[in-house]
Amino acid sequence: MSLIVQKFGGTSVGSVERIQAVAERVARDHAAGHRMVVVVSAMSGETDRLLNLARAIQNPPAPRELDSLLSTGEQVTIGLLAMALEARGVPAKSYTGAQVKILTDSAFNKARIEAIDSANIEADLNSGKVVVVAGFQGVDANGNITTLGRGGSDTTGVALAAALNADECQIYTDVDGVYTTDPRIVPEARRLERITYEEMLEMASLGAKVLQIRSVEFASKYQVTLRVLSSFKDGPGTLITTEENIMEAALISGVTLNRDEAKLTVLGVPDRPGIAGAILGPVADANIEVDMIVQNVAADGSADFTFTVNRNDFDKALGILQGIAGELKAREVTGDRKIVKVSLVGVGMRSHAGIASRAFRILASEGINIKMISTSEIKISVVVDDKYGELAVRALHSEFGLGG
Amino acid sequence: MSLIVQKFGGTSVGSVERIQAVAERVARDHAAGHRMVVVVSAMSGETDRLLNLARAIQNPPAPRELDSLLSTGEQVTIGLLAMALEARGVPAKSYTGAQVKILTDSAFNKARIEAIDSANIEADLNSGKVVVVAGFQGVDANGNITTLGRGGSDTTGVALAAALNADECQIYTDVDGVYTTDPRIVPEARRLERITYEEMLEMASLGAKVLQIRSVEFASKYQVTLRVLSSFKDGPGTLITTEENIMEAALISGVTLNRDEAKLTVLGVPDRPGIAGAILGPVADANIEVDMIVQNVAADGSADFTFTVNRNDFDKALGILQGIAGELKAREVTGDRKIVKVSLVGVGMRSHAGIASRAFRILASEGINIKMISTSEIKISVVVDDKYGELAVRALHSEFGLGG
Repeated sequence: MSLIVQKFGGTSVGSVERIQAVAERVARDHAAGHRMVVVVSAMSGETDRLLNLARAIQNPPAPRELDSLLSTGEQVTIGLLAMALEARGVPAKSYTGAQVKILTDSAFNKARIEAIDSANIEADLNSGKVVVVAGFQGVDANGNITTLGRGGSDTTGVALAAALNADECQIYTDVDGVYTTDPRIVPEARRLERITYEEMLEMASLGAKVLQIRSVEFASKYQVTLRVLSSFKDGPGTLITTEENIMEAALISGVTLNRDEAKLTVLGVPDRPGIAGAILGPVADANIEVDMIVQNVAADGSADFTFTVNRNDFDKALGILQGIAGELKAREVTGDRKIVKVSLVGVGMRSHAGIASRAFRILASEGINIKMISTSEIKISVVVDDKYGELAVRALHSEFGLGG
Repeated sequence: MSLIVQKFGGTSVGSVERIQAVAERVARDHAAGHRMVVVVSAMSGETDRLLNLARAIQNPPAPRELDSLLSTGEQVTIGLLAMALEARGVPAKSYTGAQVKILTDSAFNKARIEAIDSANIEADLNSGKVVVVAGFQGVDANGNITTLGRGGSDTTGVALAAALNADECQIYTDVDGVYTTDPRIVPEARRLERITYEEMLEMASLGAKVLQIRSVEFASKYQVTLRVLSSFKDGPGTLITTEENIMEAALISGVTLNRDEAKLTVLGVPDRPGIAGAILGPVADANIEVDMIVQNVAADGSADFTFTVNRNDFDKALGILQGIAGELKAREVTGDRKIVKVSLVGVGMRSHAGIASRAFRILASEGINIKMISTSEIKISVVVDDKYGELAVRALHSEFGLGG
């Protein structure tokens, strides 16, 4: 008899029919003898409806009031799902974040979970009830309702799994697992049976939008075994766990494509200490997040400095650089928004030399020019012209034998 | 500087524009120096929307889950109203019933308030904030969300006014006060400046649907001064208070017309002890509420027994009586759904004899036959053919000089 936490997102509970379908699935697992905690999001569209109401009244809305308002979305879903379970003869009880209580700090709209009181939930589980918990929300020490920000329901699921020492936290989504790459680009892409937290973090931040980064970090920190599954069809999904739980780690787990970035270059700045800070300081002050950073020193002793930002921030960042170019004594400021980032991810990379050179060779053989390179222990990222993005993904996916 | 509790119903907060209008009004009173607590209902239509969602899933819905679900309606409104106040530069803070906390028993869907913790609200008032509280809801000793049943928001307002020792509890509705009678029937009907709790209770239960009976009972018990006002136009409204606060009580305060009743008669039953119980017992067992009851003894020693029920219960009650007629040895069972009840209400009646005979005389002079009579200390009710209802109201209203 396992203790399982299941999390269903807004699409999975987007209508009366979908809620009934989720209840069916939960009832089946409950009948199989599992102890069940179910975390749900607001019905799809509901959070936007509430946000629009709020903005029509005050823009931006008062943060404390917005959280109290938005939290009603999940509160509606927990009530309806508990009813759907009761209607099937499955004893169920709903909990808001405050009722649990999921204690957070007071950072409204992006609160962090500090503690979970699991006593009431455990008592309900012991009496055979299915416990239905509102995702995305908590309560601070003063009784104010808080929300956890985007993807918060995943975090609620993982945090509850950690607090209850659950055997598994199952995240139901609209895909049936984590794939070696985007199947729309590479039809042979294969669902992964298992993947490590670190790999999943790299995959998530690189554009595989299956799980929120924060929930994976949380799962990794508290060693919660995650499973990504489809709400709409049965299957084993993908298990996300520690490296120790994966018998034979793959050399490469996946290839990702990120189309959201743009590249900026400051050419011919004096190669002196502090130049990187002088360039990136004003960018950071404008709240622009920087991803890859590369610096080369030319033969004449001047340096070229290149970095990537989210494509939405490109114009703003370019303006900032042009404004400080004179002060920096830069020869030129250039930018390119027509780039993509292609990455290879795999914990096996750690123990195998030569992955990078093999990757660069295969890209060269396809005639793809590499504009930037950045590597970490378990990741190699290259920036290429956006027209070569899909070709690069296919070439790497095939070269490393990731296909089914 | 008064402490005022204001309550706005669903129509008054039914849209973004209406919420802005309420915020304007509250901001004005706050600027005038009053300490303000505002109680709001769910936006009109919202409770029905949630109820329909629930019933589509489970019918009847699980009571605990239904309360948690329905309570989101008011939670949305408090957030939006607090935002609308903040947008006007008025510091505001919203409270759900649980946040207050409004402690109730655990009778889901019809909970009773047991205690109110006013400490946090008082601290907010002392710091100059407008406090916005969700009506209709509370929390039981185990942290379960409860709702107070129909008209619960009025009760929340009155209970808060009692707990905070407020100077006045203002109930904003779509009428500008309590009238001597329905102005659609008698154009000369006059708004009452003041009325006693007792009179208001008789008026409310007799068909003047301005205030929920429960909130008036509560106000009477805790001596909370109530005022009924219009959300849509300015004016003094009607004050509902103790008899001591009304310098010169009117002889008659109002005339009401109730079209919701129907009459049932059991003719020729033996006049023996226990016969009333034998007739009404089975009716009460079927959860049918009985209003007026009249029993006459005929010359032959048999009794005729007549009572009224809600018109919706007429068929059911008639069926019950026909079923037990043999057992009761009744000569006949008859019924009449084409009746109305007309009532005169006024605390002045207590000290003035002859009101009843004057009322009966004026009805007779209009050719109206009285089918039943029932009196209390401050009320005289008669049942007449429904075609005479409006005529009876006009005749009595004019006879007792209630016009403007």
